[in-house]
Amino acid sequence: MTMNRQVRLASRPVGIPQAENFAMAEAPIPAIGDNQFLVRNRFLSVDPAMRGWLADTGNYKIAAEGSAAGNIDTGTVMRSLAAGEVLESRNPEIKTGDLLTGWFGWQEYAVARPADLVQKITAIDLPMSLSLGILGLNGVTAYIALTRLGGLAPGKTVLVSTASGSVGSAAGQIAKLHGCRTVGIVGGPIKAALCMDEFAYDAAVDYKAGNLDAKLREVLPTGVDTYFDNTAGEISDTARMNMAIGGRIIVCGTAAVSSWNPTPLGPRIERIALTRRLTISGFIVFDHVKDWNPAVERLTQWVRDGKLRYREEFLTGIDAAPDSIAGLYRGDNLGKRLIQLY
Amino acid sequence: MTMNRQVRLASRPVGIPQAENFAMAEAPIPAIGDNQFLVRNRFLSVDPAMRGWLADTGNYKIAAEGSAAGNIDTGTVMRSLAAGEVLESRNPEIKTGDLLTGWFGWQEYAVARPADLVQKITAIDLPMSLSLGILGLNGVTAYIALTRLGGLAPGKTVLVSTASGSVGSAAGQIAKLHGCRTVGIVGGPIKAALCMDEFAYDAAVDYKAGNLDAKLREVLPTGVDTYFDNTAGEISDTARMNMAIGGRIIVCGTAAVSSWNPTPLGPRIERIALTRRLTISGFIVFDHVKDWNPAVERLTQWVRDGKLRYREEFLTGIDAAPDSIAGLYRGDNLGKRLIQLY
Repeated sequence: MTMNRQVRLASRPVGIPQAENFAMAEAPIPAIGDNQFLVRNRFLSVDPAMRGWLADTGNYKIAAEGSAAGNIDTGTVMRSLAAGEVLESRNPEIKTGDLLTGWFGWQEYAVARPADLVQKITAIDLPMSLSLGILGLNGVTAYIALTRLGGLAPGKTVLVSTASGSVGSAAGQIAKLHGCRTVGIVGGPIKAALCMDEFAYDAAVDYKAGNLDAKLREVLPTGVDTYFDNTAGEISDTARMNMAIGGRIIVCGTAAVSSWNPTPLGPRIERIALTRRLTISGFIVFDHVKDWNPAVERLTQWVRDGKLRYREEFLTGIDAAPDSIAGLYRGDNLGKRLIQLY
Repeated sequence: MTMNRQVRLASRPVGIPQAENFAMAEAPIPAIGDNQFLVRNRFLSVDPAMRGWLADTGNYKIAAEGSAAGNIDTGTVMRSLAAGEVLESRNPEIKTGDLLTGWFGWQEYAVARPADLVQKITAIDLPMSLSLGILGLNGVTAYIALTRLGGLAPGKTVLVSTASGSVGSAAGQIAKLHGCRTVGIVGGPIKAALCMDEFAYDAAVDYKAGNLDAKLREVLPTGVDTYFDNTAGEISDTARMNMAIGGRIIVCGTAAVSSWNPTPLGPRIERIALTRRLTISGFIVFDHVKDWNPAVERLTQWVRDGKLRYREEFLTGIDAAPDSIAGLYRGDNLGKRLIQLY
C-alpha cells in the first residue's frame, strides 16, 4: 500500500510560521468517493498568504463563503495550492491523466472534491509549475486586482512593493503592458537589478539602502497614481506620502508586518486619505473566482508572446516544506517559491 | 463711506483654531471691477473644514485646481462660504437683488468674482440660511459622497459619526431615504435623542458613555456596509472593527483628531482593509462642483416634502466669528452653525 507523506500543522504560529510549527506524517491514501478524484501532487505552492491562513486573530475567519481563506486547525494537512496529475477519478468531468491545480495541500497525494479544483491546466506547451505562479495564484491576483481596482491607463504611474516577487513582478509587468510608468520597491540590490533587467520597471528603489522617501520623491516627481501594496508597514507609510491626488492603493499583502495580534501602531491615514482623496481597497483574489479563467488565458498569451516574464525557485522534496514560509519572509527567495515532489 | 467689518487671520493656529488666531478689522469697500459684483453678506458659514484650510501641514496645499481648499495666509480675510444679496453688479449674469452663496468670506460686504460664486438661491420659499447647510455645503457633501461612494441600497447598514451634526444628520437621512438601516455615533445623550427623534436613525450610540465597541456590536450584528466618517481617531478605529466584508468607509472629516502635525499614531488599517476587503475613500465635495446644482434640487424637494430635516444654530453679529470654530470642536453646537449679520 502506497503511503502518503504529509505536512501537518503541529502548533499555531505566533507571527511568521516557522519549521517547528509543522510536523511530517504518513497516512494511507483513502478510497475515493462519488465525484471525487485522486491527484498525485507534483508541485506544492508556498505563498505569503499562508501566514494569514494560519493566524488565530480571527481576521480571516470572516472570509467569503466558499473561499479557501479560513483558518486551519492543528493536526490537519497544511492548506496549499498544488499542481498534479489525476491518477483515478469518479467524477465525470475529471479524467485520469488530467493536469490540475487545486487545494490539494502539502502532501504527496490528495483525494479531492470538485470544490478543491481551481483550474485544469490547458497550456500544456508551458511548464506545469507556471500554473501555480504567473499563470495561477500570483499572476491572476495581480491581473484581477489591477484591472478591477488599478485604474490602469497610458501615462499613469504605478508603484509596486515586493516588486520582484511573484505577485509584484506580475503586477509591474501588467501595469507596463497597459502603458503605465512603473516603479518597484525591493529589498536589496539583487532584487532591484531583477526589476530593471527582467521585469521592465522604469525605476527600482531599494528600501534597505535607506532614505526611501527621498528616493521615491526623486523617481516619482508627479506622485503615484496606483500603489500595489504587498508589504504594509513602514514601506507603505512612505509610499502613501507620495500618492497623487485621487490615487489608488490596492492592499494585497502585508509582508512587512510580522504580527497583527495585537494590531501594531502606525501613522494615521485618515487625513491623507481625505486631503488627497485616496481610494484604499483590500483585495483577495478568492472573491473573484469567476474571473480566474479569463485572467489565465490573457496571462498565458502574454507569456507565450514573451511579454510577461517570471522567476521560479524550486525546493526539492516535501521535507523542504516546513521551513519554506519562514524563508519567504526572510526574503530568501527570488521568484515564485515551489516545492517539487518528482 | 460705508466701512466693511472683517475677520482676518492673525496667526496660524496649531490644532483647533481659537478666537485669538483672528482679529477684527475695518476696511473701505473697494469699487467693483468688470464682471465683479458686490454682495452684502447676511449669513456667514462656520464649518469644521476651516481647521484644515488654516493648517500649515501642507496637506491641503495639494488641492484640486480651482478648489477653495488651499491654505489661507495671515492678514487676509478668513475664507468662508456666505449667503447674501447683490447690491451692485458689473456681471451680466448677476443682477442687483439676486440672492447668492459663495466664497464671500467672514466680512460684511464682499466684492466677488464669478469664481467665488457657488450657487444662486432659487428656493426663495425656504429660509435663505438653508443654502449654507442642508441645501448647501453640508447637505450637498452628504448627498454626493453617499450617492457616489456609499453603495446605498435597501437593506444596507450605514453608520455615521457626528451623526447629529450638519453633514452627519443629512447623511443619515439620505441613507434612510434610500432604504438603508442607519446608526449614528454621537457625543452625549442630547445628540443621541436628536438622532432618534429628528433624524430618523434606527439607533444612536453615545461614544462618551464608554464601551463603544460593545454597543456598536449590539446594534450592528451583521456589521456595517458603509461608514460615513466625520471624526477619524479612536471612534473610527472602533467603527472599523465593525465593518462587514466588502464594506465602504467614506472619509469626509477628521473632527476627533486635534492635530495632524505630526501625524498621530493609531492602529494600522492594512490588515483589516485586506481581510475584510474594505474600500476606504477620501471625499472633498469641491472635486464635484458639477454635481452641486442637481444635488441641491434633490435636497430641496426632500425638504419641501418634509422628508429631510435639519437643525440650525445662529450666532449673532460678526464679533461672534472668531470663537465659532473652536466652539464646533468643543461640540457646543446642535446643528449647522451660522453667523447672522442682519
